[in-house]
This record gives sequence, structure tokens and C-alpha cells, in this order.
Amino acid sequence: MHCAGFAFHVVAQDPASAARCGTFHTPHGAVDLPAFMPVGTQATVKGLTVDQVRASGAQMILANTYHLALRPGEAVVRSLGGLHAFCGWDGPILTDSGGFQLFSLARNTSITEEKAVFRSHIDGNLLELSPERAVAIQEALASDVAMVLDHVVALPAEPAVVRDATQRTLRWARRSQQAQTRSDQALFAIVQGGLDPELRVECARRLTEMDFPGYAIGGLSVGETPAEMYRVLDVTVPALPEDRPRYLMGDLLEAIRRGVDLFDCVLPTRNGRNALAFTAAGPIRLRNVRYADDPRPLEADCPCAACRHARGYLRHLFLAGEMLGPILVSLHNLTFYQRLLSAARGAIANGEYTAFADEKLRCLGSLGT
Amino acid sequence: MHCAGFAFHVVAQDPASAARCGTFHTPHGAVDLPAFMPVGTQATVKGLTVDQVRASGAQMILANTYHLALRPGEAVVRSLGGLHAFCGWDGPILTDSGGFQLFSLARNTSITEEKAVFRSHIDGNLLELSPERAVAIQEALASDVAMVLDHVVALPAEPAVVRDATQRTLRWARRSQQAQTRSDQALFAIVQGGLDPELRVECARRLTEMDFPGYAIGGLSVGETPAEMYRVLDVTVPALPEDRPRYLMGDLLEAIRRGVDLFDCVLPTRNGRNALAFTAAGPIRLRNVRYADDPRPLEADCPCAACRHARGYLRHLFLAGEMLGPILVSLHNLTFYQRLLSAARGAIANGEYTAFADEKLRCLGSLGT
Repeated sequence: MHCAGFAFHVVAQDPASAARCGTFHTPHGAVDLPAFMPVGTQATVKGLTVDQVRASGAQMILANTYHLALRPGEAVVRSLGGLHAFCGWDGPILTDSGGFQLFSLARNTSITEEKAVFRSHIDGNLLELSPERAVAIQEALASDVAMVLDHVVALPAEPAVVRDATQRTLRWARRSQQAQTRSDQALFAIVQGGLDPELRVECARRLTEMDFPGYAIGGLSVGETPAEMYRVLDVTVPALPEDRPRYLMGDLLEAIRRGVDLFDCVLPTRNGRNALAFTAAGPIRLRNVRYADDPRPLEADCPCAACRHARGYLRHLFLAGEMLGPILVSLHNLTFYQRLLSAARGAIANGEYTAFADEKLRCLGSLGT
Repeated sequence: MHCAGFAFHVVAQDPASAARCGTFHTPHGAVDLPAFMPVGTQATVKGLTVDQVRASGAQMILANTYHLALRPGEAVVRSLGGLHAFCGWDGPILTDSGGFQLFSLARNTSITEEKAVFRSHIDGNLLELSPERAVAIQEALASDVAMVLDHVVALPAEPAVVRDATQRTLRWARRSQQAQTRSDQALFAIVQGGLDPELRVECARRLTEMDFPGYAIGGLSVGETPAEMYRVLDVTVPALPEDRPRYLMGDLLEAIRRGVDLFDCVLPTRNGRNALAFTAAGPIRLRNVRYADDPRPLEADCPCAACRHARGYLRHLFLAGEMLGPILVSLHNLTFYQRLLSAARGAIANGEYTAFADEKLRCLGSLGT
């Protein structure tokens, strides 16, 4: 199906790596790539208004199909005008398919060729999710980018299990594509294949033949090591078309190096709620007594609302159990990620991404893994 | 002591009641009276950034001496530049004295002529608070308006108990005044006297003789009925000087009618956290299923960030346990209070306060009591 209002352009290619800058146009505006999407699981980035999310530098956010289908239900979201009107975010929104939550959150999930059957993690109700239903829910949510339902398996896994799930993911991708009825929503495919390079390449090629407007590299952050993840990216990304955006949940700097364009991760907000602030000099654990009367902001050059305060104030908020602590440090961490991605785009445009990433990884560790 | 940077002017007097409009100038800016101060107990209005508090229309906020002395301690606040730098609020700040928390929150409080001895509600530590210490803490906090330490008793109480506490409050007011060293902080007195009109008038007159820059009517909202509170205001306010601001914790509309200028109350934020939203048509309990797919904002003419969303979205946030629900409804309720006070000021200026208050009380009930 032709997607109206979407376009993807590569605008700069790093000479020494697969890193690239690009622009992804959607019906709700453009996104500079590589881009980091804050996670708004339940149609809210935890603790922040959409104005604050926008002020962090974010251009696109993510919401979770599984959670919203369970509560409040996609019919409510549709009746209130779709996700954009519902949560007030007027930029692009990506919804996942629920495949990862079937793996990580739902109880008693059993998967057949037809569909997944599982129990809600909220009330234990028996529910079903098929490729067609995942598309229908996301069409009701009216996100800009929807994801096909995939079959995720924990790693390590038997080769036969991985192969079976990968083949099913391919068949489900086809069924998802055939179920699509909206032309103003881009449906991205998801590459599976575990840690098997041949299976990954085969899956990427078969999905590429189906001509999706974008591709996710799935089935990662499910038990493998970072090195194993990087090897999967090393073989998978080159098997994907150059002219489509690539999306990965999790790791940023090493994945950008390998040509991935779009990311999401709960760490900035989850860590923020737990008093851990990211800085260019490394993480700050604000509950530490050393910060009790520290007058410095988290980062002197950060424009976020948290950095108008002393570390001593932020620490006080956490020790006093005040909501503003999680709010401000979530906002800082999201701003930190956006500033990091902005710097990465600049480095790619200047042909210096390799040195940039090496330096950042030395200071920060591999964010998101 | 002369207070530098403070002035109080009555700019309009309602013809049919004691309601009045005024301006209270402080070293951190002016406040239009009658004014409502959001409560920032621990140097944060719960869940909101100072920008959001400002956007609600607030000009002045309150912080609690008892809480801040316990955690993080006034020395930390002072070392980080005082309350304004600490919490980032650049407008006027009022601190209470801790007298009410000794009554309501501290454990095993025993009061002698010299001081109060009590156990911290946080860790049970044995602590002391004297009039001199309450002034010293508030000077370290560097609020614009400080309160004298008073002796609060629960109502109903034996006449001898009330009389004793009132006499002590007068002696403590004198000691507080003598302990003051900052000239850039206005120290307000607190009128006690229980429900005894003669004692209230005597206390007000004695405090007026001491020439404080402002007066609170204390010892209310401690077990008495609204009618009893109004009778206390009816006799107390006329015994206070016309040319000084008057401050009351709690009830708004009936107290404005009786000539009170300055208010604080936790209800907008506490109710907001509990999914109860104030509207001109009466309160909305957002957990009610009737709002599940209600596309309307809380109030169609409200400019706050919450009112850019459907009630159905706000309900979803509370049912999903998302922080943004308490945040947005707190913001709405504070905005509601500020709009109410702004309308009250307009009604006073137009000489129509009595009709205004009667109409609002019919729709809203007596907010804050």
C-alpha cells in the first residue's frame, strides 16, 4: 500500500562507518535522523507534559499498542480523536505491535500460526492478538508509524525455535501488510532471526522483497550480550534497503555506527525516576550524600528545567519523596539523549562519527544496553 | 524593625462587605490581593515546575518551615542561596513558623514557656522549636514573609487552655520580633484566641500595638465548624489595622468577604492528585466511568495545560497510574483557584463582591473548608 505523506531521505553518510543522517517525513511533521523517541507507553511520557517532551528536543514519540489496547482500549482512543488528540502530541507517533510485550509482560502467552493467546498482566483476562488485530488496533490508535506483529523468542534458544519464529514473523508480516487499510500510516516490518546471521539476512531479504516503508531489527535486548547484538546488526543492516529508515529498540551509539536511524528506550525516564541522571561526565546518583549541598546543576551547559537547579535541590526532592524529582531528572535525561543525538548528527555530517562515538562511549558506556 | 522593600496598599473596598483589593509589595515583586498562595511544603508545589506554578497565575507561594528544617535542614537551603535560588521561584515566598505542624504533624509535642519539644514525624528524633529558633530558621531560609511561632490548640478546648495558649502566643510574638535580624523579611504575627470573641479581640489589639507588618488569623481549621470560623473572623478582622495585610490558612470566599487578603490551602493540589478537579459547575471526580470517553476539557474556557485534553484522557492517566494525571489536575486546580481570585478582585473593584461570592458559593460550596 502506498503511504501518503511519508518520505525518507539520507542527507549525509559517514565515510568511515555505516552511520548516516537523514530526514523522515510523516503526516505529522519531519524527524531528523538518527532520532531518539521518548517512550510514552500509556500515551504519556511518564511525568511530563507534551510541552516538556517537546522542550527536551524530541520530534517523535512512541506509544505501546499492548498497553493501550488493554487500557483504555483502542475504541476509546479512536473516539477521542486518535493518539495525537488523545495525548496532545502533534508530532509523529510510532506504535509498536505488542509482540515484545507478549514476550515480556503478558502472562501464559501461547502462540499458534493464527494468533497469540495470552492473559492480561493487569487483570488476568484471556485475550488474543493476531497480525490483523495488531494492525486494526494501531489503525484505531492512528499512529503515524505502525509495526507488524512479530514472534519474539528469548535468547539463547534452540535453532529450530528461532527458525520457526522467524518464518512465522515473515508470514505474519505478509498478513499484516494485507490487513492494512489506512494510507496515512506507515507499516514497518521487523527482522527476526535470533543470533543466526544467515537467518537474519534471509529474513531481511524476504521482508525487503515485500517492500515495507521501514524496517525494525527485532528480537534483540532479549538475553544476548552487546557483542552478539552488534554482530546481528553487522549482518542485518546491510541486507536492508538503503532508502528506508531502520529502527532499533535500545542501544544507540553502536547501532548508529552500524546504520540504524531510529531508536527508543525507557532508560532516560526510568533512570530519571530512580534519581540517576546522565551527564557527559558520567552518571550522577542523586541520592548520594555528596550532592547534599552541591550548588552545581547536573550539566552547566544543559538548557533543561532541571539544570536551573542545584544538585542539592534535586537530591532534596528525591529524599523528600517529591514528584518533582522524578519529573525534573526525567526531563534532564531526555534532554541529554536529544543533545547526544543532535551531536551525533553533527558528527556524521562532518564525517567524524567514528571518533565521536568512540569518545562518547569512553565517557558514557553504551547507553541503553 | 523596619522592613525594606515591603509596602501594602488597599486599592478598592467593596461597599457592601469588608472585602478589599490591594497590592502587597515585597523584595521579590508585588502580589495582587486577595491572593491565593499554592503550598510548596518541601520547597516544591507537588508535581509542578516553578514555570507551571507561574503559568497557573500564582504570584506568591508558601513553604513550610517545619518540613524544611527537618529535611534538608535550613543550613543546606542557606548554603544553596536561600529558598528562592533553591526552588527556583523568583516571586515572593511566605514561610509558616512550624506552629501548626507542631500541633498537626509532630509527635509527642510538649510546650513550655521557653519552647516546644517534639519528635520528628520522619525519624522520631527529639527536636526543639522556640520563637527565636523559628525566626532564625526562616531567616536562613530567606523567605520574604516569615511567621511568628504560635501556640495552636485543638478545638473545642477548655477556656483556660485557650487563654493560656493565647497569652503565650503574645509573649512568643514579642520574642520573635526581638529575635529578628533581617530587614528584608517581613515578620507577620498570628492572632489566637480559640472561639472566644473577647480573647480574639484582645489578642488582635495587643499584637497590633506591637506593630507587625502583617497579621494572620490562626488557630482555625482545627475542629470548629465553618459558622464558628466565620464568627471568629467577624470579630477578629475589625480589630486588626486596616493598613496591614491579613492572612488566613483555608477558606477563601467567606474570608475575603470579611476582609482577609492572603490565603493558602493544599486542596487544589491534594485533590488534584486524587483525581478531583474543580470546575465552575462543581467538582469532577475523574475516576468515574462516565468520563471514559468524554471529549470535553475540564473547563472549556480554562487556559491550563490540562484543559487541552479530553476528560477521557485525564481519566485514563489516573486509571493507568500515570504521574501525568496528578500533575495535570493539580495544575488545573491551581489555575482554577487563581481564576477564582482574579474574578473576586474584579468583583471587589466593581463593588459587586457580595453578589459574586453568593453566586460562587452556591455553585462551588465553600472551597477550602
